[in-house]
Amino acid sequence: MSNWQQKVRLKPRQRGFHLIDSELLSQLPKLHECNIGVLHLFIQHSSASLTINENADPTVRVDMESHFNKFVPENASYYRHTYEGPDDMPAHIKASTLGSSVSIPVNSGQLLLGTWQGVYLGEHRDHGGSRNIVATYVGS
Amino acid sequence: MSNWQQKVRLKPRQRGFHLIDSELLSQLPKLHECNIGVLHLFIQHSSASLTINENADPTVRVDMESHFNKFVPENASYYRHTYEGPDDMPAHIKASTLGSSVSIPVNSGQLLLGTWQGVYLGEHRDHGGSRNIVATYVGS
Amino acid sequence: MSNWQQKVRLKPRQRGFHLIDSELLSQLPKLHECNIGVLHLFIQHSSASLTINENADPTVRVDMESHFNKFVPENASYYRHTYEGPDDMPAHIKASTLGSSVSIPVNSGQLLLGTWQGVYLGEHRDHGGSRNIVATYVGS
Repeated sequence: MSNWQQKVRLKPRQRGFHLIDSELLSQLPKLHECNIGVLHLFIQHSSASLTINENADPTVRVDMESHFNKFVPENASYYRHTYEGPDDMPAHIKASTLGSSVSIPVNSGQLLLGTWQGVYLGEHRDHGGSRNIVATYVGS
Repeated sequence: MSNWQQKVRLKPRQRGFHLIDSELLSQLPKLHECNIGVLHLFIQHSSASLTINENADPTVRVDMESHFNKFVPENASYYRHTYEGPDDMPAHIKASTLGSSVSIPVNSGQLLLGTWQGVYLGEHRDHGGSRNIVATYVGS
Repeated sequence: MSNWQQKVRLKPRQRGFHLIDSELLSQLPKLHECNIGVLHLFIQHSSASLTINENADPTVRVDMESHFNKFVPENASYYRHTYEGPDDMPAHIKASTLGSSVSIPVNSGQLLLGTWQGVYLGEHRDHGGSRNIVATYVGS
């Protein structure tokens, strides 16, 4: 199969890190027809992020949230962009620190993630709502 | 249109975060002929970065600069790479934290950025000068 | 040359940042036959990372390690994922902060890295062992 592109709308999730492999893959059946290439996942928001991390122990996601809340604090004295609430500016900083996209190698219809890797949504707003992802496959 | 590649030279900017969508896109007219694929933007420097974030309120860029200056401090006691000045080593750390490239889905000649997303240059040196970007389109 | 994909197994390295250009490129001879595209390098582990940074002065790698050890500390009171040792949870946080992949433009068989750029492995475990990378070329 050649290049293709598809939008995926994620269900709303609470603030924190969430494993989204199942929800994503169930909506991308064309992946099974792909041979060699890269799947590019892009989140169309500046206050949420995509990253790849450990897929087994939920406490990793809890600790990620604790860490980024400490090192990207709310209510920092130097913030000027504050009118959407204390979670607003930290969400933008987390989005750039973690990134708006991940790209994953594909072979014979499968994502070549490592055994312990999964795709995380970083939901950085208190009430982010549903999030839009654009999935683009480039390859053969 | 098939794969293409083009170099873009950005005008010099002062230290901080800058929205560069207009300057970039005005130099990439071939994008309008692209159908489905990914635009990959790569900055050829280890003391500047590319990231995607909020495109409307300039205080977001100001707050990003304040945040990264605090959490990637100048003159840390443990720095050994110091001979190019206090902005040198922090610039390298910021470059890796934020990243050297962004990739953006393309459809029918348009970047599929979200409504509130834009491309930022992170200029992490006090006098970085002009910066080189390689734009590569892969897709159809 | 069209799209191709290859696994590369990196030799074990000690905790810290390591320039891996030579080891990688010596195992990717097909790169010389590529015309225009992007080389995507993906590490199949959630406690190591890939990033691009300064390729000349080894103290940059030392300072990167010092910085991330300070700002992603071991034994933080809020960590709950602790049973694999004090380097475990920080390794996951560093992996997401720095990223699991880099993508680099290619032209006429050459990586279009800047003069001062190289590919770093971030080895974030005390005893990480050898690491697997999937190299995927998309382009023409």
